[in-house]
Amino acid sequence: MERADPLADFFYPRGVTVIGASANPTKLSYGVLRNLATHGYRGPVYPVNPKGGAMLGLRVYTSVAEVPDPVDLAVIVLSADRTVEALEACGKRGIRAAILIASGFGELGAGGREREEQLREVARRYGMRFIGPNCVGVVDTYAPIDTTFIRTMPTQGSIGFISHSGAVCGGTIDWASAVGVGFSRIFSLGNQADVDAADALESLAADPHTRVAAAYIEGLPQGRRFVEVAARTTPEKPLVVLKAGRTPSGTRAVASHTGALAGAEQVFLAACRAAGAIPVDNLEQLVDASIALAYRRPPKGPRMVILTNAGGPAAVGADALDRLGLQLANLSPETQDRLREVCPRGTMVGNPVDMLGGPMPEHYAAALEVLLAAPEVDGVMVLFVPQAITPPYDVAVAVGQAAETAEKPVVCCIPGGGGIRAAARALHAHSIPHYITPARAAFGLGALWRYRAIRERGPSTFADLPALADPPAQVQEVVEAARAVGQEVLDPQAGAELAAAYGLPVPPSGLASTPDEAAALAERLGFPVALKRVAPGLVHKSDAGGVALGLEDGRAVREAFARMVGPGEKGFVQRMAPSGLEVIVGAQRDPQFGPLVMFGLGGVYVEVFRDVAFRLAPLSEAEAREMIEETAAGRLLAGVRGQPPGDIDAVVDVLVRLGRLMAEMDEVAEVDLNPLIVGPAGKGAWAVDVRVVLG
Amino acid sequence: MERADPLADFFYPRGVTVIGASANPTKLSYGVLRNLATHGYRGPVYPVNPKGGAMLGLRVYTSVAEVPDPVDLAVIVLSADRTVEALEACGKRGIRAAILIASGFGELGAGGREREEQLREVARRYGMRFIGPNCVGVVDTYAPIDTTFIRTMPTQGSIGFISHSGAVCGGTIDWASAVGVGFSRIFSLGNQADVDAADALESLAADPHTRVAAAYIEGLPQGRRFVEVAARTTPEKPLVVLKAGRTPSGTRAVASHTGALAGAEQVFLAACRAAGAIPVDNLEQLVDASIALAYRRPPKGPRMVILTNAGGPAAVGADALDRLGLQLANLSPETQDRLREVCPRGTMVGNPVDMLGGPMPEHYAAALEVLLAAPEVDGVMVLFVPQAITPPYDVAVAVGQAAETAEKPVVCCIPGGGGIRAAARALHAHSIPHYITPARAAFGLGALWRYRAIRERGPSTFADLPALADPPAQVQEVVEAARAVGQEVLDPQAGAELAAAYGLPVPPSGLASTPDEAAALAERLGFPVALKRVAPGLVHKSDAGGVALGLEDGRAVREAFARMVGPGEKGFVQRMAPSGLEVIVGAQRDPQFGPLVMFGLGGVYVEVFRDVAFRLAPLSEAEAREMIEETAAGRLLAGVRGQPPGDIDAVVDVLVRLGRLMAEMDEVAEVDLNPLIVGPAGKGAWAVDVRVVLG
Repeated sequence: MERADPLADFFYPRGVTVIGASANPTKLSYGVLRNLATHGYRGPVYPVNPKGGAMLGLRVYTSVAEVPDPVDLAVIVLSADRTVEALEACGKRGIRAAILIASGFGELGAGGREREEQLREVARRYGMRFIGPNCVGVVDTYAPIDTTFIRTMPTQGSIGFISHSGAVCGGTIDWASAVGVGFSRIFSLGNQADVDAADALESLAADPHTRVAAAYIEGLPQGRRFVEVAARTTPEKPLVVLKAGRTPSGTRAVASHTGALAGAEQVFLAACRAAGAIPVDNLEQLVDASIALAYRRPPKGPRMVILTNAGGPAAVGADALDRLGLQLANLSPETQDRLREVCPRGTMVGNPVDMLGGPMPEHYAAALEVLLAAPEVDGVMVLFVPQAITPPYDVAVAVGQAAETAEKPVVCCIPGGGGIRAAARALHAHSIPHYITPARAAFGLGALWRYRAIRERGPSTFADLPALADPPAQVQEVVEAARAVGQEVLDPQAGAELAAAYGLPVPPSGLASTPDEAAALAERLGFPVALKRVAPGLVHKSDAGGVALGLEDGRAVREAFARMVGPGEKGFVQRMAPSGLEVIVGAQRDPQFGPLVMFGLGGVYVEVFRDVAFRLAPLSEAEAREMIEETAAGRLLAGVRGQPPGDIDAVVDVLVRLGRLMAEMDEVAEVDLNPLIVGPAGKGAWAVDVRVVLG
Repeated sequence: MERADPLADFFYPRGVTVIGASANPTKLSYGVLRNLATHGYRGPVYPVNPKGGAMLGLRVYTSVAEVPDPVDLAVIVLSADRTVEALEACGKRGIRAAILIASGFGELGAGGREREEQLREVARRYGMRFIGPNCVGVVDTYAPIDTTFIRTMPTQGSIGFISHSGAVCGGTIDWASAVGVGFSRIFSLGNQADVDAADALESLAADPHTRVAAAYIEGLPQGRRFVEVAARTTPEKPLVVLKAGRTPSGTRAVASHTGALAGAEQVFLAACRAAGAIPVDNLEQLVDASIALAYRRPPKGPRMVILTNAGGPAAVGADALDRLGLQLANLSPETQDRLREVCPRGTMVGNPVDMLGGPMPEHYAAALEVLLAAPEVDGVMVLFVPQAITPPYDVAVAVGQAAETAEKPVVCCIPGGGGIRAAARALHAHSIPHYITPARAAFGLGALWRYRAIRERGPSTFADLPALADPPAQVQEVVEAARAVGQEVLDPQAGAELAAAYGLPVPPSGLASTPDEAAALAERLGFPVALKRVAPGLVHKSDAGGVALGLEDGRAVREAFARMVGPGEKGFVQRMAPSGLEVIVGAQRDPQFGPLVMFGLGGVYVEVFRDVAFRLAPLSEAEAREMIEETAAGRLLAGVRGQPPGDIDAVVDVLVRLGRLMAEMDEVAEVDLNPLIVGPAGKGAWAVDVRVVLG
């Protein structure tokens, strides 16, 4: 599934101009020029500065109009107020790609956002793309090209890194250089006024040197498109995402920083599911997962071995593995015998394999070879706590040589600070990810295991559902009729009709204006019936005393109507559904990620347990089934302690149909089926209360 | 509450002998002698080796019997098979404290455990205490004394560190020395065959140089005593605990390592609550929490400020703060004005306070002074991402000088590797904890906040409940009667009587042998009644169809009896309780931590939600109330969506009484009140099914 790189001009320009270049080494613009000139870029570099002259041995042009061909990319290092006109000059000159370094735009509020709109207007007019403003630029270590002012050029590697924040880029490059981790590409996106994280991910998907995409994101202007691009990418390349601004405090921090719209935690996690992305909580985890995915293949199963010279840290590592869904392998007697042959005397050959105080590098290598050959082992965590005798570097080289080409994942934890840098570099040079604590090493294996599950699930159906049909005609009629009478929340009958049009199971029902009409209607629908008062502004009907259940005959209907329904109001009469487990099914729209479907236990339990699952809509049967299984409601439906299982298939059908409704009907803002009554397996489910809010 | 140090002999011996001392520098015993001789210990050191001679300028004695006075401590560095007799020789010589380095004991299984028993037998005979075997010894930086063979002597500080594992000790000292973090004492406990974690904690509690105790624990041979010691210690000194072996895999890793008995996660967390300890999940968190608690006081409130030069990491930090129960402070207009005066132009003076690209050290200092003076601020996270212009060390010194003596907690995150070591040391020298990521800095503030809650709660009632009365006489009768007829699970009537004797609310009930007897009994108790079949081996009665509820008259009772109760069986007749919310209350005994009380939502929900809270028994009213509030059942009892609140006071009373029952009645292994039916507030609760298992 090769796709063209939509941002190729940023990485393979035939020439680059730096607008606002400076000869003052304390200026950012000097750094940009220096990196372009000295970090390997092979095309021509044209500094532009009204003063002219020469810098770093390059002729300085006094305006971009003067710059000779070929030139495909401009790096604009001017203040915010001069950036718009510079972009326009680039457009006139025929340059189609630009990187805008200046801050002073959307992050400052309304005035800055207007300036960003001016940038977009210029770009539209000239058919340009631009990265930034308020960014640090891009790096490609293979092209090679470095448009940033960060002093260190990263080494070549297979991690493609997308960062909203320039500071995070700089910090990450620093750390990576010290321990010998390389990158394929780095994007500092800044305010994403044009090129955004979705574009960057599309570019990484097309880049043959990128094996894993790692993204640090504050806001996603086109969240839905990011998920779609990711869903196409992740079956082939893993994507690890750190999203800042998921909690109330974090959201506030992001808002003051870049004005980006931050989504809620659960919505973000639902988006990651649809995207096949691996969400992480902090920068350590972003790094830990990325290096594991960059250097190793996923394990075939969850059975891990810890090979160690220290029991305590191994126990901490085992706890961490367990929490990530992995387990300690049971080593066979044959494997234990082989280990005894190659390990130091006294080695405990259970799992963890503890070689105690003084193993030599060759012991690590030999034990690792035994474990990698054992069929009961799916992966290995090597743990070496530096002690007096054995140098960490030698252990690293031995581990690296023994495991470099192994199919099974191997990660290595050597705790320590500066003294183990050389060991870390040796491990990375042999494609073994290095960690400084056992818990972080476990996190690396956990990311590989998570990616295996994502790949096993196959391409996300989210992106591949067949094109959606036009909504059924009667649905439009229902919506238009409600609009005509000014309803924003559909009355129960209109809601039931909308639901029925999408094949959602609703008991037969109708509206009545008088007690006699209600009784006659109940006769037609079949007893027993429920009667609900229909009046504008009643939301939680059970709170308002406007519901009568289990009315068995016409007289009961008439009495209830007379008691409950006021003048000018109506009565909603509905055949009673059979009894069953009450669950809640809902749908809403997120401003970033679009329609979502929710499932959980109904009644008061949804409020006390908040045990609900979310998925982006539309969703597949498999996704619907998975979200049911995640919840306590799902465990109840599966049958607990002798109770018969509920009709899970019927719930799956409801979730899928509701997902299609939301995907097709832009007019619908929210739907609540609360409750959906689920009968025993094979007996169906009934949406007895359909609440639809129009947008 | 000064207590004497029970292990003073290990830290202030008047003389030390090293048995098995070696002149070979690759031997551990050489390292021990070297550290005793060169790491500051001021008393005499007596090497013992049958070869005699001299080492490191010290006379070598050929046997411990020859060693002159004064000598209070022996470090025995012999193989396992020679350690027992050496300990005996020390005992004969009048030495009362010993450290046993050799491995080859309990960690190897039954044979090794027997050898440990021999050590204990010798120690008992001579009134000795020993640390180990399979340990690295102890350090006190103030005494000073270092009995380990670890090359680096830690610097003086206020963290007292207890470690089961020698490797964890070594790694921690290495890291701490590099970044300038000091220790008061370090214990490597090994197999804890005599001195255990509880003894070590008692010693740290008495040590005036220790401000915070940090413990890495694999198993607790006397878990209950550890909790008791901790409950006395934590109102004055915080205790941070990392327990390895809490998951199935971790438990296995620990078992193969030291043969220690590891407890389940929930029990451990309940023990931490009773102990007032702060539990952590890995070594990073142990360090992160300990340095915060060592250097700073807890905040008065949750309102934190992030002072930064980079927005992205600040957002990650804000998310992390939020997840730990902290929040971003709302800065007043006055504070914002003062910040504008002292910060660089363009600084965003909301919270995070973002000084953007190029703040100088003096900007950090000035902004910090403003924030520390602001009444709306309870603590500050300073974040500095190193950039081209400002040296991290200068920022560290400025932050340290501005905040060293502040009452409010200040933590500082400067990301990076070897290049920021000097900055980290400068921060620690000024009592500011340093972190390499914002999430870890947030964890430090979170630990301080957590400790504030622990201290606010006051001394744990766990340790301070008044001495327990003898159990009521009728209770003993019930138990003896059941034992006499071979019951291990009490029949429902015996269970109800036991419960009633402790004041637990049980409806009136009795046993009947015939339908007529049952009907007469029901008449006496009052209708309606429930009838339960009583036969050995029936556990989940509702599964077995042996319960009839709501019997309204004598005829109904007779019919139900005849239908359900077989020959030789009995019928348990009980007046029906009023309806209410069904919760589950239970109690059990943990082999490490003793009796526990459990609370959660009853019925099938306990199985699908597993939403239960645990506390060690006995427990106070406050603890009972807290455990109810933690659960979904508690939120339901508090009243949801118009439903009236339940009788929480009655549940509190039940939990406290059940806790006393478990604390007083060693014979009772388990109690289940499933369900406890909770009526509306003021109407009480009813234990309608009391299941008691004898031990």
